[in-house]
Amino acid sequence: MNIENTHTKKEGYALMRIKDLVVGDKATIDLLVLSSNIRLTTNKKPYLDLTLSDGTDKISAKKWNWDMSGKPEVGTVVTINADVTEWAGNKQLIASSVCRSTKGPEEFAPKGDFDIDDYRAKLNMLLLSMENATLNNLVTKIFDDYLEQWETVPGATNVHHAYLAGTFQHSIDTAVIAKAIATNIDGCNVDLCVAGALLHDVGKLFVYELNGSIISYTEYGHLLEHIVSGIVILDKYRTEENSEIITLLQHIIAAHHGKLEYGSPVTPKFLEAWIVSYADDIDAKVNIIKRINRGCNSKFTEKERALNNSAMLSQRYVEEVINK
Amino acid sequence: MNIENTHTKKEGYALMRIKDLVVGDKATIDLLVLSSNIRLTTNKKPYLDLTLSDGTDKISAKKWNWDMSGKPEVGTVVTINADVTEWAGNKQLIASSVCRSTKGPEEFAPKGDFDIDDYRAKLNMLLLSMENATLNNLVTKIFDDYLEQWETVPGATNVHHAYLAGTFQHSIDTAVIAKAIATNIDGCNVDLCVAGALLHDVGKLFVYELNGSIISYTEYGHLLEHIVSGIVILDKYRTEENSEIITLLQHIIAAHHGKLEYGSPVTPKFLEAWIVSYADDIDAKVNIIKRINRGCNSKFTEKERALNNSAMLSQRYVEEVINK
Amino acid sequence: MNIENTHTKKEGYALMRIKDLVVGDKATIDLLVLSSNIRLTTNKKPYLDLTLSDGTDKISAKKWNWDMSGKPEVGTVVTINADVTEWAGNKQLIASSVCRSTKGPEEFAPKGDFDIDDYRAKLNMLLLSMENATLNNLVTKIFDDYLEQWETVPGATNVHHAYLAGTFQHSIDTAVIAKAIATNIDGCNVDLCVAGALLHDVGKLFVYELNGSIISYTEYGHLLEHIVSGIVILDKYRTEENSEIITLLQHIIAAHHGKLEYGSPVTPKFLEAWIVSYADDIDAKVNIIKRINRGCNSKFTEKERALNNSAMLSQRYVEEVINK
Amino acid sequence: MNIENTHTKKEGYALMRIKDLVVGDKATIDLLVLSSNIRLTTNKKPYLDLTLSDGTDKISAKKWNWDMSGKPEVGTVVTINADVTEWAGNKQLIASSVCRSTKGPEEFAPKGDFDIDDYRAKLNMLLLSMENATLNNLVTKIFDDYLEQWETVPGATNVHHAYLAGTFQHSIDTAVIAKAIATNIDGCNVDLCVAGALLHDVGKLFVYELNGSIISYTEYGHLLEHIVSGIVILDKYRTEENSEIITLLQHIIAAHHGKLEYGSPVTPKFLEAWIVSYADDIDAKVNIIKRINRGCNSKFTEKERALNNSAMLSQRYVEEVINK
Amino acid sequence: MNIENTHTKKEGYALMRIKDLVVGDKATIDLLVLSSNIRLTTNKKPYLDLTLSDGTDKISAKKWNWDMSGKPEVGTVVTINADVTEWAGNKQLIASSVCRSTKGPEEFAPKGDFDIDDYRAKLNMLLLSMENATLNNLVTKIFDDYLEQWETVPGATNVHHAYLAGTFQHSIDTAVIAKAIATNIDGCNVDLCVAGALLHDVGKLFVYELNGSIISYTEYGHLLEHIVSGIVILDKYRTEENSEIITLLQHIIAAHHGKLEYGSPVTPKFLEAWIVSYADDIDAKVNIIKRINRGCNSKFTEKERALNNSAMLSQRYVEEVINK
Amino acid sequence: MNIENTHTKKEGYALMRIKDLVVGDKATIDLLVLSSNIRLTTNKKPYLDLTLSDGTDKISAKKWNWDMSGKPEVGTVVTINADVTEWAGNKQLIASSVCRSTKGPEEFAPKGDFDIDDYRAKLNMLLLSMENATLNNLVTKIFDDYLEQWETVPGATNVHHAYLAGTFQHSIDTAVIAKAIATNIDGCNVDLCVAGALLHDVGKLFVYELNGSIISYTEYGHLLEHIVSGIVILDKYRTEENSEIITLLQHIIAAHHGKLEYGSPVTPKFLEAWIVSYADDIDAKVNIIKRINRGCNSKFTEKERALNNSAMLSQRYVEEVINK
Repeated sequence: MNIENTHTKKEGYALMRIKDLVVGDKATIDLLVLSSNIRLTTNKKPYLDLTLSDGTDKISAKKWNWDMSGKPEVGTVVTINADVTEWAGNKQLIASSVCRSTKGPEEFAPKGDFDIDDYRAKLNMLLLSMENATLNNLVTKIFDDYLEQWETVPGATNVHHAYLAGTFQHSIDTAVIAKAIATNIDGCNVDLCVAGALLHDVGKLFVYELNGSIISYTEYGHLLEHIVSGIVILDKYRTEENSEIITLLQHIIAAHHGKLEYGSPVTPKFLEAWIVSYADDIDAKVNIIKRINRGCNSKFTEKERALNNSAMLSQRYVEEVINK
Repeated sequence: MNIENTHTKKEGYALMRIKDLVVGDKATIDLLVLSSNIRLTTNKKPYLDLTLSDGTDKISAKKWNWDMSGKPEVGTVVTINADVTEWAGNKQLIASSVCRSTKGPEEFAPKGDFDIDDYRAKLNMLLLSMENATLNNLVTKIFDDYLEQWETVPGATNVHHAYLAGTFQHSIDTAVIAKAIATNIDGCNVDLCVAGALLHDVGKLFVYELNGSIISYTEYGHLLEHIVSGIVILDKYRTEENSEIITLLQHIIAAHHGKLEYGSPVTPKFLEAWIVSYADDIDAKVNIIKRINRGCNSKFTEKERALNNSAMLSQRYVEEVINK
Repeated sequence: MNIENTHTKKEGYALMRIKDLVVGDKATIDLLVLSSNIRLTTNKKPYLDLTLSDGTDKISAKKWNWDMSGKPEVGTVVTINADVTEWAGNKQLIASSVCRSTKGPEEFAPKGDFDIDDYRAKLNMLLLSMENATLNNLVTKIFDDYLEQWETVPGATNVHHAYLAGTFQHSIDTAVIAKAIATNIDGCNVDLCVAGALLHDVGKLFVYELNGSIISYTEYGHLLEHIVSGIVILDKYRTEENSEIITLLQHIIAAHHGKLEYGSPVTPKFLEAWIVSYADDIDAKVNIIKRINRGCNSKFTEKERALNNSAMLSQRYVEEVINK
Repeated sequence: MNIENTHTKKEGYALMRIKDLVVGDKATIDLLVLSSNIRLTTNKKPYLDLTLSDGTDKISAKKWNWDMSGKPEVGTVVTINADVTEWAGNKQLIASSVCRSTKGPEEFAPKGDFDIDDYRAKLNMLLLSMENATLNNLVTKIFDDYLEQWETVPGATNVHHAYLAGTFQHSIDTAVIAKAIATNIDGCNVDLCVAGALLHDVGKLFVYELNGSIISYTEYGHLLEHIVSGIVILDKYRTEENSEIITLLQHIIAAHHGKLEYGSPVTPKFLEAWIVSYADDIDAKVNIIKRINRGCNSKFTEKERALNNSAMLSQRYVEEVINK
Repeated sequence: MNIENTHTKKEGYALMRIKDLVVGDKATIDLLVLSSNIRLTTNKKPYLDLTLSDGTDKISAKKWNWDMSGKPEVGTVVTINADVTEWAGNKQLIASSVCRSTKGPEEFAPKGDFDIDDYRAKLNMLLLSMENATLNNLVTKIFDDYLEQWETVPGATNVHHAYLAGTFQHSIDTAVIAKAIATNIDGCNVDLCVAGALLHDVGKLFVYELNGSIISYTEYGHLLEHIVSGIVILDKYRTEENSEIITLLQHIIAAHHGKLEYGSPVTPKFLEAWIVSYADDIDAKVNIIKRINRGCNSKFTEKERALNNSAMLSQRYVEEVINK
Repeated sequence: MNIENTHTKKEGYALMRIKDLVVGDKATIDLLVLSSNIRLTTNKKPYLDLTLSDGTDKISAKKWNWDMSGKPEVGTVVTINADVTEWAGNKQLIASSVCRSTKGPEEFAPKGDFDIDDYRAKLNMLLLSMENATLNNLVTKIFDDYLEQWETVPGATNVHHAYLAGTFQHSIDTAVIAKAIATNIDGCNVDLCVAGALLHDVGKLFVYELNGSIISYTEYGHLLEHIVSGIVILDKYRTEENSEIITLLQHIIAAHHGKLEYGSPVTPKFLEAWIVSYADDIDAKVNIIKRINRGCNSKFTEKERALNNSAMLSQRYVEEVINK
């Protein structure tokens, strides 16, 4: 492949993000190759046409006068020197050079638009206010024991929270919502709701993995799915003292999809299991709605399969209506 | 009918409630007749066997030595002088006299276990914190214009909130839950959620009615149901200024059952419509779970059709497990 | 764009239709551009390859020796001078010139294969025989008040009656079928069936709109759909005298999809509501079957998603079998 | 059994019908026993309490001072001498004698409220206007060949047309409706619709049978159901000349339930098959609505399982609204 | 209660079964009370009317001249001295005495019509031919470790195998069927099918329990159901060597209901999981069909909810047709 | 078309199969054209790019230096002289010549990977052990009467057994499985299961046909489907003696899809009908699993629509796990 190898990667420069590129500037940036094609201009000159990703956003890049004998492979990382231009309302790179980067694709795995430190803090707040000692100790221990997984494993292969630490973010946001609901219902045990919400997807830690920058199922996950996996993990923490509480939490995990046809082997059998199931569903919907509103400038979003295959009214437009 | 007519109703005494009866006391109480049978004792003496209601609770009553030529009719009100006894763990009345009351059955319509003043206060709190003037004015006006209906019309004929002012209670509790959720989601308009939740069932005000003590559908309600009815009411408040907001609220009403097969002609199309739909569902579930837990002393409740036809673990037992 | 601008549009010439083009003739015709591509012949000469529409039919056009620097945009109208040829059994235009037309795309909106005057006459016949004065006055007024919408708004964005005045045609054909059924059923009120059928889709008048030549949903329609929209319109005609009849008609509108999962908030509650629901369904099926039989020369039609994703036996073949 | 056997049945008197009984008269009438109980009056005297049927209507009968040693068996026929009285708005018989009749129960099989001669005439009208000779000959022959079955076999065991000659009535009414629809659709073959409608349920002739007065399935019918049975019958009429038409008619039979989940092994594949399927469905609905409106004096009918388990607005009330 | 207490239970006599009672004989037998009523003969004499069970079959018993002051309680065991008579084709006991037995109700828990020794032998045969050592050791160990549960726990609370050791019988019969199928399919691992079938319902051992003679769910079983329970048990046998095989077996357990809506959190992902799922379903159907054919003397059985709510042709009749 | 016509087909050489081609050899082979394109090399030289089939397997072929004026048509057969090479792990042909073959496309109809003689032998074995003379004679006669169809007609247009004699193979394999199951169930008639399995798809013989190498529906099959078609065929074999057996077999055919929504007009009504329905389903699943495992070298197969749209664990991997 005739990628120009003269580029010397300068150690220490922070990973530049697509959203930080400014139209009119020049930039040097490392990006993951999502698609790579050699095309002809109308006057028959070959050029390189790339779609690139930083894990969160995508951008198109063109390098004119490309020799046809090779091209960057999909799934590898390239370093680009380019002018940042605009085309059809979107940023586009016109490259002066494209060469192989020393970075690996794993640095470009899909990333959510959130700060993991914020979520560490949220988790601590939730644990600080969890008064029941058995539940608090159990949740704390499970987050400690699998800290690395919590802070890396995605929440799905697509649809919602399909990025690094997606399970971590989703579990905490679900707990925040469950707590808000539970606090407003007489006779509902708030600690059980929060603990159940924090652990409802713990099984995902062993169900998803990253191959390069691609999220995929583990063999174990493909065969047993995250509900079963989570129940099995909880069982390892069972002691004589906490045995009945473990069973309640296992039930919350088992029932959190709400219906058998969504993969729950049982439906919810007490109030707190219903609350966690609703909170999970709400946070998933919120995550999908945020995704399809991202960068949406029109009155309606694109159709979304996971929302009855329907377009949504954009949240920007809803705000305009309310506030005018 | 040989009901003893000698009883003189004393004006001014407050309506006594079944839950206030004390075993061992004597009591004089007006109650609605739910069932009425003449039976034989084992030594072949006829007695009157009644099931009675004060609108909230039920009690069994027996009057020994009853003449077989007549009995109180179902749906009427009787005044009973009786000893309050206990049988199989439940209170039971052994009557010395049963006579027709001057009260009408409408005073014994089903009542929820809540204080309407608490809910008036909750509503005011919700309105006080609703900053958007258009929404606040609109909701305030709709609650004022139909105040009598809000404070009487039930929330259903059965399943959940099937008692006087059930729609009022449910609308406010749904708003409380919706607000709790919305407050914890970035980019969600809290006022729109609260207003939508308060109005989502406004159509029920014209869909249910009381016939004596029985909740039934109006003809209008039978033909159009509460979603359509609510949208039509909202339309009467449309002005040039609030027109787009009215349409958003009509959508929230239209979509609040979440799925077409549950009677919504459209599915939710923006975040706040989803939130109201979830909050409505949560409050309905909470109300059902409270109903089946009421007076439940065993580990599991009765099976409940509206909860996957399944028994729930009793909330009392859940608390015991968590707190031991 | 290098479209030849020398063409002078002669005012007053009637819009020529694709179905009137005769193979072997020369023609000058204005058509809407559905697709526009520059391609290479096998000897590497660029040519322009267009798909064009007159709103009802489509045709392919080619202009040899096209300069690669520009091409007509999709959604605009072009005037073509061309030889009408035949290729693979279909008519094709070989153009000598292609230039921008002065016509707007709105003249090329999709059109059904029917004469609107015939339908005006059918409507009058239906009204002439409608004896009930309340119903007759109401229907007459609603058709008069929204005449412009009736005679332009399509019946759908796709599937059936997706062309100008499609709602008008469909409403009248549904009424004809409903009348035929009702006339043959003892105890069925024919006038209510006809009035209900004529108004069942009135809500569509505010749900669909034309953007250029593209049928799309209005914001109002996207949020409330045509059943709700129609009920709201009817409510504006409610008087003390006709109130109960308005409610019956609103029910017919509400119930005309027959099942909740098809978007009706209630199921039919009297005979005439059932009849309108069936007649609507029958006319939709007839319209789809006519569409897929149009120009079908083989024993089976193409598979049709709206008919169980199945191919139909062609109606031409059915006739042959019956008549041989 | 101490049924009084002195009664001598007078040959030749026409079967009296319940609807002909006049309150205040005395009557002698043969009726089928649907239920039979000995009960006690409040002063402990035994009496006989019967529910009786003439095949179309039901009536309650009482015989005071009944000896407890026996009672008429359910499913037998009794001759009653009685005063026709009224109780709770319904006619009731107060018998002076109850004795075994010489009639068999088969004379009291359920009967529809129609005159079979009217339907013979309707059938002839349909055949007279059926111009296609192949279809006309075929239908004529199949009605002739199975005349006895057509004029006796019920249309179902319950739900709709569950009475003698119910299949005959339903087939003809379906054909009348199908013809009315087809006549109003361009390009629809009316003769094929009428022939298909007349034959769509021919298989029922071998699927239902009367055991005494009870409609039940034949073994053959239980194992193959009427769609398969009808297709097999049609196949016996296949000749070289009519073979393709036979296949079209077999398809109409196969597809007339419209959906696989309703027992059709194929869905409709041409217009006429759709029309027959709709006409069948409409006539079934009409028959059910007539049944539940029979004798209904209130605004709403009883709930009907076959109509979404919902109450209908009574047709009498619909007429009142329209005509006031 | 005036049960005659003079009866002295003779120790050591074997439990007599209802099916061993001979019409015309006298018998002394202990039976469980399923229903207990005091009724009046036509000449007003009270008698005791019982329905009794030996765990497998039911029988009706009558004791004439019963004092009205008491009766045996449902769920207790009585000793009856009686003449074995016949009534309406069924055996019936006419008791000379009814007194309380010293046996507990647990001896009358529902029993299947099979010999547990036969099934011990079948299990050994299956294990003898299981060549794969890992699978053989694992299955052997799990049957040994929970031997008491295997030989007592029922297979369900109703529908199929709802009797003592029902899980044991069903697991072995499922394995026999799975083996028969697997042996006839190229490339199917027979040992994995047999092991999977033997263990597919192992979770039931902790899900059902006997309360007296009533089968009910354990709290653990109500909250997690047998699929989850079985997977958790298997996990306790996981070693480094057998880890992947354990996962395959856990998948077979997880997937054995075949569809999510039947409670499986995953669908089958390899051939052997499909085979076990089919074999399980077949053995359940066979068990139901045997149950409804038991004692069936007519051409059709009763309707059975678990078989599409339909009556079956009796197997006796099928045999007659085939063999005549 | 410039296909080189100099090739002279040598009579008598056996049809070479793709699986017999050896990498590194030269070969002359006749193959069906599935796709045909002229493409450009990077140095702008046109070449011919073909996908070819021998009815069982597919292979890619390239002919460099192809004149752009013509190419082989899809659906025709070509004779290729080529070097057998390997590319990306698959065999590929680099052709020196491509010319039109004298073979017709019908010789390249899809073929299963089985030997029809093996299946003839299996059928004989099944018949040899079928002791019931009526069933044996009937099955034997139906296989004899339609021998040509049995040995050619496919089992489907896609999904499973979609190749020549697929119905023959599937019917016999289903019978083998049904026999294995039935033999292990007390009270199950093995001969009826085997006969029912052999005949369950007999209707397919008149439902599918080959057009060139393409499997398609006959008109008759499109209108009536194979269940109806099979029942009609069986009816032609009905005699006075076998009439009841014919009805049982017709029921097995009618019920073999198990559920109405899968196209069975009745559900199974006796044990043997259930067994055949299960055996049919099992053999279909086995056939699909074999197809997707064919040539699969990874741990998981491709996703398969007919298996819950899920990837399967490859059978090779299952074997590895079990046997290591």
